[in-house]
Order: sequence, then C-alpha cells, then structure tokens
Amino acid sequence: MSVDEERRSTRVKRLPREVRERQILDAAVRVFSQYGYHNASMDEISEVAGVSKPMIYAYLGHKEDLFAACIRREATMLMEAIAAGVTTEQAPDMQLWHGLRAFFQFVGEQKQSWRVLHRQATSQGGPFSEELLAMRGRAINLVDALLVRSATTRGEAPAKSTEALAAALVGASESLADWWLDHPEVSDKTVASWLMNLVWMGFGDLVTGTVWTPTPE
Amino acid sequence: MSVDEERRSTRVKRLPREVRERQILDAAVRVFSQYGYHNASMDEISEVAGVSKPMIYAYLGHKEDLFAACIRREATMLMEAIAAGVTTEQAPDMQLWHGLRAFFQFVGEQKQSWRVLHRQATSQGGPFSEELLAMRGRAINLVDALLVRSATTRGEAPAKSTEALAAALVGASESLADWWLDHPEVSDKTVASWLMNLVWMGFGDLVTGTVWTPTPE
Repeated sequence: MSVDEERRSTRVKRLPREVRERQILDAAVRVFSQYGYHNASMDEISEVAGVSKPMIYAYLGHKEDLFAACIRREATMLMEAIAAGVTTEQAPDMQLWHGLRAFFQFVGEQKQSWRVLHRQATSQGGPFSEELLAMRGRAINLVDALLVRSATTRGEAPAKSTEALAAALVGASESLADWWLDHPEVSDKTVASWLMNLVWMGFGDLVTGTVWTPTPE
Repeated sequence: MSVDEERRSTRVKRLPREVRERQILDAAVRVFSQYGYHNASMDEISEVAGVSKPMIYAYLGHKEDLFAACIRREATMLMEAIAAGVTTEQAPDMQLWHGLRAFFQFVGEQKQSWRVLHRQATSQGGPFSEELLAMRGRAINLVDALLVRSATTRGEAPAKSTEALAAALVGASESLADWWLDHPEVSDKTVASWLMNLVWMGFGDLVTGTVWTPTPE
C-alpha cells in the first residue's frame, strides 16, 4: 500500500457508516437518473461517490439492491417533504394546496430523485414497481385522510369515494409531474395551482354534495 | 401423420391469417394477464390458442414481440372505444363524460386487457413502457383537443395549461382504474361519475376563468 493509498484508506475509514451510505446513495441517484438503471455502472457510481466498489457491495449490496435503496430513500424524502408542508390546523383546501406545493417543489428541486423514482423505476419494472406501489399506497392514504377529515370537520359522513378520489389525485399529480419534466419553463407554483384548480372544486363538491349530472339526451 | 392429425392440420390451414392471429392474441392476453409476463409460457399460450408454437413464432414472433403486439392491439381497442363514445357535436362536458364512460366501460368489460396494458406492461418496463408511453401520448392529445375545442367554442383563446391538465386527467383515469380493479363492487358508471365530478368543475373554471386562490396567511 502506498502512502497515498494508506492516507486515503485511513480517511475513508473515519467516516461513519451513515455518511458513507449517504455518499453512495447520492452518487447512485445521480448516475441512475442520468444513464437509467440498465446503463448505469457500479464503476461510475463508485467513482462519483469516491467509495470503492467492494465497500458499496458491503454496505448496500449489488446494483439491484442499491437501486431499491435509492427508491426507498427518495420516496421517504418526498413523503416527508409533503407531510412537512401540511398541518391539520389548516383549512382543507389550504392543506391540499400546501401538499401539492410541497410535492411540486420537491419534484422541481430534486429532478434527479423524481426521474429515478418515477421514470426509471417504472421503466425497469420488476421488484422496483413493488417499492413504487408501496409509495403510492402511502400517498393515497395521506390524501384520503385529508378528504375524510375535511368531510367530518363539516359534520358529514365521509363519502365512500374518498379513497378512489385520492387515488385519482395521486395519479394526476404523478402524470402532471411527468409532463412538467418536459416543460421546465413553467414554475412549480403554477403547475401546483393548475392541479389545485382542476380538483379543488370537485373535492369541495364531494363535501357539500353538489354533483354534476349528465344532461338528458 | 395420422388421419386425425391430418384432418386437424387441414382445418387449421383453412383459417385466414388474421383469424389465426386474433386467436393467438386473445390467448396471449388471457395468459399474460393471469400469470404476468415473466411467468407466462409460450406452451400455455399455444395450448389456449389451439395454435402450435412454431406457428405462433412464425406469425407473431417470440414472447417479447407477442407481448408488445398485445399491448398495441389492446391500446388501439381502448382508444377506438373512447373515440366511438365521443362526438364533437356534444357539449364539452358531455364529451368528457362519454369519454370517461367509454374508458371505464372498456376497463370493466376487458379487465384482462387492462391488466396487460397497465399493470403487466408497467411492471415489466423496458420496451413495453415505450408502447405504453405512446398510448398515453395519444390519450393526452385527445383530451387536450377536447379542452382546446371547448375553449375556442366559447370564443376564448385556449389556456396554455390544457395539455398539462389533459396529462393530469389521463393520470387520474389510469390511477382510478387501477384502484377499481381492487374494488369491483363499484359500477363503471359510478367510478366515471366520481372522476367527472372531481374534474369537471375544474375544467369548467379553466374555460370561464374562475380560479381558486390560496387565502392569505
């Protein structure tokens, strides 16, 4: 071992495991989002992270495990960002607005995260779609809880459609975020307000009982 | 060749190619939706179709090609079902309503198609997600055209957000259809009316210029 190598090895060893793991995951998200899962190489991730391949394998496993760990971490960060934006003291429309704002802010600031989470994980399929499904499930529950609270606050029994509408809103948000990746000239606030305007009146109706009905033909 | 084999072979040969291909694709959709892409076997598809494996290979190629052909055919059927439900003479809200009705009717009647199209293709990723993306693009264009027509009919310049909102609606429909697969007790008309009620007021606002704005905090 040369002096240089020894010095580097000593320095590397001093880093606590969580710091090392964060370095690896940061690098992996960058490389996966740039090259896609299939074309991303562990050599490249190792180089970007400044962590040797054997150490990556020891800490986070092989490419498939590493990719799954990226999805889990980025999904958790996204959910935390949304939860941090919303407090239950706010009026229902403001809760939804802040939730949407937080979502599009996260996607805008963490475009690499979103690419890995949504585009890469979707196009890779297999075990990764399980991780994605779990994340979607959590997001749907969050919105569902908001809609149920919103109805019960007004002293009404929540409609049984809240979970379905929560699923619709999550799908709409994902799809719109995907559209937005190709239209970066639009601000995150504008995108959020489009979606808010699209759905809020509908959610409001759900609570007040106003309905659209087809005109007789 | 036994007499039986010869008779069968003669009978099979009499079928025109398009009929044979339809048999194969029908069987493939059934098998893929039941077992998933990975676990589906060409033996099973051959047996369900009543067509020999060499003939399947000759007509539609190997498993990957066959799956891609299924996605293309089912996507085309879905788009045709939606287009058949909508005529441009209808008022914009009725066009959207009939489009949503046709979509959920198709998903309800062709659950196997939808499983292959959406769940299987999504979870397989790779080349199949390209087919899916193309289908989504066509669906988004269809809804976008409806929203633009709806605005111009009222003598207004269409908002630049129509394409984004079309993307949101397509994502909401997909996500809601997925939720519906796990809640078959809800009727297709009910699911369609939930989504219509969720988005129509929002789309109406897009045209009339009414907007939701956050309350000052």
